[in-house]
Amino acid sequence: MQEYDLLIKGGRIATASDTFSADIGIKDEKITCLGTSLNGSATRIIDATGKWVLPGGIESHCHIEQESSTGAMTSDDYYTGSVSAAFGGNTTIIPFAAQHKGQSLADVVKTYDNRAAPKSVIDYSYHLIVSDPTDKVLNEELPAVFEAGITSFKVFMTYDLIMIDDKQMLDILDVARRFGALTMVHAENNAMIKWMTERLQETGNEAAKFHGISHPRQSEVEAINRAIQLATFLDAPLLIVHVSTNEGANAIAQARQEGRKILGETCPQYMFLTDENLVGAGEEGGKFICSPPLRDFQTQKDLWRHLQNGTLQLYSSDHAPYRFDESAKLSHGPNPPFHKTANGMPGIEYRAPLLFSEGFLKGRISIQQFVELTSTNAARIFGLHPRKGTIAIGSDADIAIWNPDREVQITETSAHDNMDYSPFAGMNIKGWPELVINRGRLIIDNGELKAVRGQGEFLRRKPFETTGYISHLPPELDVSKNHGAEIL
Amino acid sequence: MQEYDLLIKGGRIATASDTFSADIGIKDEKITCLGTSLNGSATRIIDATGKWVLPGGIESHCHIEQESSTGAMTSDDYYTGSVSAAFGGNTTIIPFAAQHKGQSLADVVKTYDNRAAPKSVIDYSYHLIVSDPTDKVLNEELPAVFEAGITSFKVFMTYDLIMIDDKQMLDILDVARRFGALTMVHAENNAMIKWMTERLQETGNEAAKFHGISHPRQSEVEAINRAIQLATFLDAPLLIVHVSTNEGANAIAQARQEGRKILGETCPQYMFLTDENLVGAGEEGGKFICSPPLRDFQTQKDLWRHLQNGTLQLYSSDHAPYRFDESAKLSHGPNPPFHKTANGMPGIEYRAPLLFSEGFLKGRISIQQFVELTSTNAARIFGLHPRKGTIAIGSDADIAIWNPDREVQITETSAHDNMDYSPFAGMNIKGWPELVINRGRLIIDNGELKAVRGQGEFLRRKPFETTGYISHLPPELDVSKNHGAEIL
Amino acid sequence: MQEYDLLIKGGRIATASDTFSADIGIKDEKITCLGTSLNGSATRIIDATGKWVLPGGIESHCHIEQESSTGAMTSDDYYTGSVSAAFGGNTTIIPFAAQHKGQSLADVVKTYDNRAAPKSVIDYSYHLIVSDPTDKVLNEELPAVFEAGITSFKVFMTYDLIMIDDKQMLDILDVARRFGALTMVHAENNAMIKWMTERLQETGNEAAKFHGISHPRQSEVEAINRAIQLATFLDAPLLIVHVSTNEGANAIAQARQEGRKILGETCPQYMFLTDENLVGAGEEGGKFICSPPLRDFQTQKDLWRHLQNGTLQLYSSDHAPYRFDESAKLSHGPNPPFHKTANGMPGIEYRAPLLFSEGFLKGRISIQQFVELTSTNAARIFGLHPRKGTIAIGSDADIAIWNPDREVQITETSAHDNMDYSPFAGMNIKGWPELVINRGRLIIDNGELKAVRGQGEFLRRKPFETTGYISHLPPELDVSKNHGAEIL
Amino acid sequence: MQEYDLLIKGGRIATASDTFSADIGIKDEKITCLGTSLNGSATRIIDATGKWVLPGGIESHCHIEQESSTGAMTSDDYYTGSVSAAFGGNTTIIPFAAQHKGQSLADVVKTYDNRAAPKSVIDYSYHLIVSDPTDKVLNEELPAVFEAGITSFKVFMTYDLIMIDDKQMLDILDVARRFGALTMVHAENNAMIKWMTERLQETGNEAAKFHGISHPRQSEVEAINRAIQLATFLDAPLLIVHVSTNEGANAIAQARQEGRKILGETCPQYMFLTDENLVGAGEEGGKFICSPPLRDFQTQKDLWRHLQNGTLQLYSSDHAPYRFDESAKLSHGPNPPFHKTANGMPGIEYRAPLLFSEGFLKGRISIQQFVELTSTNAARIFGLHPRKGTIAIGSDADIAIWNPDREVQITETSAHDNMDYSPFAGMNIKGWPELVINRGRLIIDNGELKAVRGQGEFLRRKPFETTGYISHLPPELDVSKNHGAEIL
Repeated sequence: MQEYDLLIKGGRIATASDTFSADIGIKDEKITCLGTSLNGSATRIIDATGKWVLPGGIESHCHIEQESSTGAMTSDDYYTGSVSAAFGGNTTIIPFAAQHKGQSLADVVKTYDNRAAPKSVIDYSYHLIVSDPTDKVLNEELPAVFEAGITSFKVFMTYDLIMIDDKQMLDILDVARRFGALTMVHAENNAMIKWMTERLQETGNEAAKFHGISHPRQSEVEAINRAIQLATFLDAPLLIVHVSTNEGANAIAQARQEGRKILGETCPQYMFLTDENLVGAGEEGGKFICSPPLRDFQTQKDLWRHLQNGTLQLYSSDHAPYRFDESAKLSHGPNPPFHKTANGMPGIEYRAPLLFSEGFLKGRISIQQFVELTSTNAARIFGLHPRKGTIAIGSDADIAIWNPDREVQITETSAHDNMDYSPFAGMNIKGWPELVINRGRLIIDNGELKAVRGQGEFLRRKPFETTGYISHLPPELDVSKNHGAEIL
Repeated sequence: MQEYDLLIKGGRIATASDTFSADIGIKDEKITCLGTSLNGSATRIIDATGKWVLPGGIESHCHIEQESSTGAMTSDDYYTGSVSAAFGGNTTIIPFAAQHKGQSLADVVKTYDNRAAPKSVIDYSYHLIVSDPTDKVLNEELPAVFEAGITSFKVFMTYDLIMIDDKQMLDILDVARRFGALTMVHAENNAMIKWMTERLQETGNEAAKFHGISHPRQSEVEAINRAIQLATFLDAPLLIVHVSTNEGANAIAQARQEGRKILGETCPQYMFLTDENLVGAGEEGGKFICSPPLRDFQTQKDLWRHLQNGTLQLYSSDHAPYRFDESAKLSHGPNPPFHKTANGMPGIEYRAPLLFSEGFLKGRISIQQFVELTSTNAARIFGLHPRKGTIAIGSDADIAIWNPDREVQITETSAHDNMDYSPFAGMNIKGWPELVINRGRLIIDNGELKAVRGQGEFLRRKPFETTGYISHLPPELDVSKNHGAEIL
Repeated sequence: MQEYDLLIKGGRIATASDTFSADIGIKDEKITCLGTSLNGSATRIIDATGKWVLPGGIESHCHIEQESSTGAMTSDDYYTGSVSAAFGGNTTIIPFAAQHKGQSLADVVKTYDNRAAPKSVIDYSYHLIVSDPTDKVLNEELPAVFEAGITSFKVFMTYDLIMIDDKQMLDILDVARRFGALTMVHAENNAMIKWMTERLQETGNEAAKFHGISHPRQSEVEAINRAIQLATFLDAPLLIVHVSTNEGANAIAQARQEGRKILGETCPQYMFLTDENLVGAGEEGGKFICSPPLRDFQTQKDLWRHLQNGTLQLYSSDHAPYRFDESAKLSHGPNPPFHKTANGMPGIEYRAPLLFSEGFLKGRISIQQFVELTSTNAARIFGLHPRKGTIAIGSDADIAIWNPDREVQITETSAHDNMDYSPFAGMNIKGWPELVINRGRLIIDNGELKAVRGQGEFLRRKPFETTGYISHLPPELDVSKNHGAEIL
Repeated sequence: MQEYDLLIKGGRIATASDTFSADIGIKDEKITCLGTSLNGSATRIIDATGKWVLPGGIESHCHIEQESSTGAMTSDDYYTGSVSAAFGGNTTIIPFAAQHKGQSLADVVKTYDNRAAPKSVIDYSYHLIVSDPTDKVLNEELPAVFEAGITSFKVFMTYDLIMIDDKQMLDILDVARRFGALTMVHAENNAMIKWMTERLQETGNEAAKFHGISHPRQSEVEAINRAIQLATFLDAPLLIVHVSTNEGANAIAQARQEGRKILGETCPQYMFLTDENLVGAGEEGGKFICSPPLRDFQTQKDLWRHLQNGTLQLYSSDHAPYRFDESAKLSHGPNPPFHKTANGMPGIEYRAPLLFSEGFLKGRISIQQFVELTSTNAARIFGLHPRKGTIAIGSDADIAIWNPDREVQITETSAHDNMDYSPFAGMNIKGWPELVINRGRLIIDNGELKAVRGQGEFLRRKPFETTGYISHLPPELDVSKNHGAEIL
C-alpha cells in the first residue's frame, strides 16, 4: 500500500485547463498521485469535500522589504509580507530586488538573499530592478544573475532616480533577448508626469486627490507604445506591468495580434477601486496613491474585459505597503503633497480572494481562468512551471483549499501584513483559501499560521525563451524580420 | 493493490496547460489514476517511455457520409471516415448532420444515427446543418435537438440551395442564444461569388485554377464582418469556421478584443497549401478545389500567427472527401468547370500529424498549444469537456501515444480513408500517433486497426453557455448592452 | 465702361479655399468680373458691406414631389420645396426621381421633368432611385440616363419594396463604374430592422419612441461595411448617405485612409437633434421619425468631428416632408405605430443657416468649410462644378448674401415649405441669407420671394469620374488591384 | 478705363478649390481684377493662352544658408537658393532660422535677416529651429518672435546637438498653444538610431548604403506616435514633417480621425526615390543620404495615397543642399562613413514640377490638389493666406504660368542652385513654370532670371490658431477635455 505524507481527499481540483474530482497523494514535497479514492496510508489526511483544491497562488509583483532610491523602506519585511501572502492563498512570491545606482547586481542579490532567506514562510524568487545598466552590468552581471536562475527584471520609464532612457532600454532588451530573459517595464512617460506635477505645484493643487491628474492616462499610453516599439525593434519579449488604461491594453492587444512578444499585467486596485476612492478619501487620500493611479469606472470594466479575453495574462497585487503614519505615507508630515507621498498600497492578501469572489463566483471568469491568472500564467511566464503553478504529478505540492461559501469582510486591519489600513476595507467577499500547503507542508490552517520563519525556499527559474509561453517563430515566419534586427 | 484495465507507463503527458511525467491507470473506460510509478496490476501495460502521451484528438469539422443538397455523397462513410480519423490520433469526430429543405430535424438526426451507429469506430456527435429554419424548426425541433445533446449547428451564408439570409440568421442566433447553443457559420458573401463566377463563365475562364478567383478574399471578409455584427447584435456566441484570410482573422481578433463572443477556426489546407497548388495542378486542379479556396503564401504565415496568438481557437480538417474520379470530383466528366466540381478535400488523418510536425516539433507552438488545438478547445467549445479533451482523473481514457521520432511520408493513398488522392501527398513529416486508445480500448496499435465497426459511442454534449469557455459577463459589465438586446 | 446686369459691392466673399473682399460683376447669368471697386454700370447694384457673399447652396439630398412605392406623396411639390430651399440660401436642388418596380427609367425622368420644370424656382437636377435593375435597366436605360446628364443615383439596402440585394448592387456598381457614374446608398441592414420591429410588435412596443430601437446602430454599421466591401471589390466609387453613427463614419474614414473611393454624408438632424427629441415628443414622436433614426448626444459630437476632419464631405437636409396630419404622418390615424408612420422630416430651409450659426459663427468650422459643405463639395461630387458651387469667373451667378448679425427664431411654421411643423422649432440661430441670386436673378430679397414658378433650369451633370474629386490612380498605383477586378 | 501694371490674358486659372478661365489684372503688386476679356490698359500684357495660371509655389521646408550645430553650412545661400526656388515656380520660401545652444532668438533672427534680406529674390519668412528652450526663450523670446510674425518653429527629437527631450517639448508645445503658434517636429527616435549606428560601426558596416538601416522605420513610427501624444495631451497643434513611412502616416490619419490637431508633410524624395537609389549609387551613395532615409517601393505608393486622401497636407522639398565634394558631403574625405556624411539633398527647383508631371498630368491628383499641395495649404497653415497661396482679389500677384506641354530632362546640374548633383537626375518630366511673377513683377521669363538680389520681402505671418485651418472646437465639443489640460 502506498504511503503518503499527506492525502487530500474529496475535493474538486482545477488547473488552468481542466477541472476534475480526485484525491491527491503527496510525498516528499511533491504531488505523486492523483486518483479516484486513493487508499494509501498518510501521515495526515485532509477532507476537502465541497471545496476547490487549487494550485497555490504565485504573487509575481510585490514590493517586500525593499528600500527605495530615496531610502524609504516598505512597511512589510519578508516575514510579514510572506505571511500575508500565505493567508491569501499564495505559496510563492516574486518580489523585487532593486539595484541602486552604482550597486553591483551581485550585491543586490546578496542583500535580498539576506533579507528573504531567514524570514520568508513561502517559496520565493526575485525580479531584479535594473537602474544602472553600465557595460559591466549588461555584459557580465546580468548574464551571471540569469545564470543563477533570476531570469526576469524590471526597468522604469519614469521616476528620475531609477529610470532608464530609451538607449539604455535597447541595451537591456538586447541582453535579455540574447539570454532569453524577460524584461518587465513600468511604462509611464516621465516628462508628462513631471510637467503636470509642476503645473499642479504652481497652482497650489498639491492635495492627495491631485495625484491622479499628475499621472495622465496619456502618459501610460505613450510609454506603453514606446516600450512595445523598442522591444519589437529587437524582437525581445516584454511584459508591461500594472496596465491601468483601456488604450494601453488595446496597444498590447494590437501588438499581440501582430505577433509581437508582448505580455500584460493588471492589478486588483485597477479593477476594484477608482479615482473616486482617492478623491473621496480627502486627507486620507494618500492611502490611495499609487502609480499608475486609480482611474475611472469605465476603465474598471475595460480592464476586466482585457483580463477575460487574454490581452492581459497576469493579475498581480503590486503590493507596495507604506503605512499611513509618520513611518511611511506621512513621513513628510500630515496631509503631505501628493508628490511627497510614498506610492503604493497593500493588497497581497486579498488579490486572489477578490478575484475568486468577484471574478469566478460571479461568473465573470471560469475557475480555469482563475487558476491561470493567480498561478499558472505566472509560473509559466517566470520559468517556474511545471514545478509550480499547477496540480500535476511531479509538481511541488503547493495547494490552496478554497471554501467557496466562506464570507469575509475586509477591514482596515484584517490582513496579516504590517499595514495599518487596507484600500479594500469595507468590501464583503465570498470564498476563502482556508488551508494552504507549500511543498506538502500545511502553512495555513483555518486562520492559523503553521509555517516558521525562513521555511520558504529560493527558486531558480528557467529563462523565458525556454518556457514556450510565447512561441518562437522559425526564421521563415518571423514577422519582425524587416526591422533591421537581422543584421545583428 | 489497485487493479487496472490498462496501465500506460513512463510517458510524458501534456494537457492544454501542463506537461508532466506519470503513469496512467485506466479502469472501466476512465482514467482513474495518475502517478509516479503506479504499481497496480493491469490487464495490459503499455510502455510509453520516450513518447508523448496526449489526449485523443477531437476532429470537430468533417463531412462524413453526408449527402449534399444536390445529391452528391462524400466518398467516406462512417467506417472509413472514423478509421482514418483514428489512424490520425483522433478518438472523437463531430461530423455534420445536414438538413435538406423540408426535412425535419428529427429525421436528420435519425438518418445520421443510422449511418454512424453501426459503423463508427470512435466516439462521435454531430453538428446539425440548418438550411430550412421554419418556425417549427426554430421553436420546436432545434430545442429538442439541443435537449438531446446536439448543442451546435452550422449555417451557410453562401450556396444557393442551403444558405440562409440575414433575417433567418437572426432567428437562428436568437434560438441558439436562448438555449445556450453554439452557432457555426460558413462565412462567404454569396453575391460576390456568383457575380464573379458569372464573369468567369462569360469570359470562358472555367478551368479549375479559376476557382480561387471566383471566391474573392473580400467575399470572406465581408461575410465574417456581417456574421459578427449579427451575432453581436443579439449577444449570441458565434464560431467562424475555416477562416482563410488575414483580414477575416483580424475582424475576429478585433471583436474578441471588444469582448464579443466570437470564436474562429482554420484548417491545415490553409496553413500548408496555397493557390499555387491549385494552379500548378493543371487538369488535376479539382483536387485542390475547396471553399473558401486556397490563398497565397503570406496568408499561410498570417494564419499561423492567428493560431499562435489565440485569435483562432480551433484547427480542424474540414475533411470533405470527394474522389478524383467519376464518382465525385469528375462526375461531370473530365476536366470539369470549377463551378461543377465538388468542393472539398480530405485530410482527417493528417490534421494532427501535420501540426505536430510543423507546429510543435519546429517550435512554432508549444505542446500545450498542440493539445489545445487538436483536442481540448474542441472539447470545451462543443460541450464534451472534461469527459473528453484532457488527461485527467475521471475523464474518458481517450489517448494518443505519439512517437516524436517516427518519420512519415505522405503519398496520394497513404491515408486510411476511401480517397484516391491526398492534397498533402509528397510531404515528409515527423512524429506519429502510433497507439490510439478510445475509452480505454486500444484501437490503433502501430499501424493496425484494432477497433470494430460501431464500437464508437454517440456523445451527448452540454450547451456552450455552460462550458465557461467564454465568460458570461454579469449585467453590469455587459459591453453589448446598448444594442437593443435588453428589451427582448 | 463695362456694363453689368448686376453688381454686388463691398461684400466679403468666400470660396471653398479662399476669402477675399471684392465687388462682383454679373452679366448674362454669369459672374464676369471680380475686382476691387468695380466701376462699371449696372442695372442693379447691391450693397453687401458687412455681409458674407457666398456661393448659393446646393441641396443634394431631398425628397420633393416624390411618390413612395406605397403611394405616399411628399407634402412638398417642386414649387413649395424649391421656394423653401431658396429662402434657405440654396440655388440648386437635386431631389430624387424614384423608379417604381417595372417602370422604365425614361418614364421616371419624364415624370419628374413634368413635376419640376413648371414649378421649380431654382435650378435642379435629379438623382435616380434604382429599385428594379433589370438587364434592360442596367445595360440600356442607365447608360442613357447618364448620357442625359443625370450621373448619380441611389439604391437602398433596406425597405422591402425598393431594396436591392448584394448581387444587384454589384451589377449596378459595375455599370456605374464603367460609365463613371456615382452610386449613393442608403445603408441599413434590412434584416436587423425587420427582426427588431417584429420583436417590438410582439411585445406591444409600437409607439413612436420605439422607432429608434427598431433601427439599431449596428444595422447601419453592418450595411456601411458591406457596401464599402462591395464597392471596393469592383473599385467603384460610392457615397454613403445620411451617416448617423460614429462607427459607420469610422468605417468610411478607414476605407478612405486605405485609398478607397468612398464618400460620406450626414444631415442636420443628426447634428442638432437626438433620440431625446423623439422620446420626449410623446404622441407627437412621429414628427421625429426618420431613418436612420436620431441617435444620442455623443453621436452628435462624433458626427461634428467627422464633418470637421473631412471624413464626411456632404451635409444635406434629407428633407423628406410629411405633414403631421392625416395627409401624411397620421394617414393611419392618430398615434400610429412607428412602423406605419412615414419616415422623414423637413429641413431644406434651415440646413445651411443651422450650420452657419452653430458651425461657422461658433468657430467649429471655417467659412471655407461652410462653403464646401453647403455648396462646393456637392457641385464637385455631382458634376456641376465649376458652373455651380463657387464664386469664380464664368460660373453661374448663384449667390447668397448672408447677414451674420441677423437673428432668427425657428418656429413650427416659420419655414416656407408646405409643412405644419419643424423639428428644429424652438432654436434661435444667428446669420441668415437675406438675398439669394440664381443665375444673376434676385430670387429672395429680404424675406420676399422674387422668383416665379418654373424659372429654375434643369442641369446636365458631368460623370463623377471626370470631376477629379477622387483621384484616379494610374494602374501601377492601384491599391485595389488584387481583388480580381483586373480580369474583368 | 482701368489701368494695370500687368495683365495676364487667356489662361486657365486654378485655386485650391476651383478652376476657371479669366484674365488677371494686377496693380500695385496685388491682383485687383479677374474677368472675362479684361480690356484695361497695362504696362505689360502676357498671353497665357493654353497655359495653366497658378498661385506661386510656397516652399515651406528648406534649408538655405543655414549653419548646422557642427558648423557645416549649406551649399546654397539666400541668393542661389531663392533663384533655384523661383525657377521651380515658387514665389515664397520659408527656410529655417536655426538657434544654436546658448543663442538668443533675437540674435538668430537678426543673423538670418542679414543673410536673407540682401539676397533673396523672392518673398520669405523663417521657421525658427528651437534647440535651447530656456525659461527666457520660452517666456520672453518665443513670444517676441511670434509677435514679430514668425509664428512657426521646428524642434528635433533626434540629433544629439539640437534635440529636445519630452519635457522640453511639452514646455514648447505649451507656449505655442498659448500664443497660437505652430510646432513642427522632426520625429525620429534618437536612441534607436544611435543604437543601430553603433551596431553598424561595430560590425564595420559604415558605407553610405547602411544609412537607411541606421534609421529604422520603427524609429520614425515611435517618434511620430510620441509627438502626437505629447501634443494631444496639451491640445496643441503639431505638424509632423517629412513623413517617410506608411505606419507613421497611418498614426497621423488616426489622430486626425479622432479630432486631434495633427498635420503631416512629405517630400518628393520619398515619392520619387527609394533605398535602391541609395544602395545602387555605391560610393556616390552619399548623394542620397537624408533623414529620414529613402524607403522602399511600397512606401512610395503608400505616401502617394496619403497625399491623395489628405492625411498629409504639405509637400515640401526639404531642400538641404550639400555638394558632393570636400566642401560638404565629402568633408571627411572620399567615401566617408554614413554617419559622418552631411544629411540632406537638394530639390527646391524640381519639387513642384515633379508633382505637376507625375501627379497632375498623370491623373493621380487634380489641378486643385496640385495648387493645395504646392501653395495654398502652406499659405494657410503658416499664416500667409489669403495674401499668399491663391489667385484672388487682393492677394499678392504671385503667379506661376505653367506650360503643360514643355518637356524637361533633369540632369545633375540642370537646376539653378549651387549644387553639383541632383538626386532626380535622369528623370524626364512634363510641364514647366515658364513665367513666374512675384508681387506683380516678372522674375522668371522663359528660363531667364529677371529678379535682382534682395527684391524679396520678409513676410509677417499670422498665428496658426487664427487661420481656421484646423477648427477650434468650442468647449462642449472638445474631444481632448479629459486629459487634464482643463485645469491649466
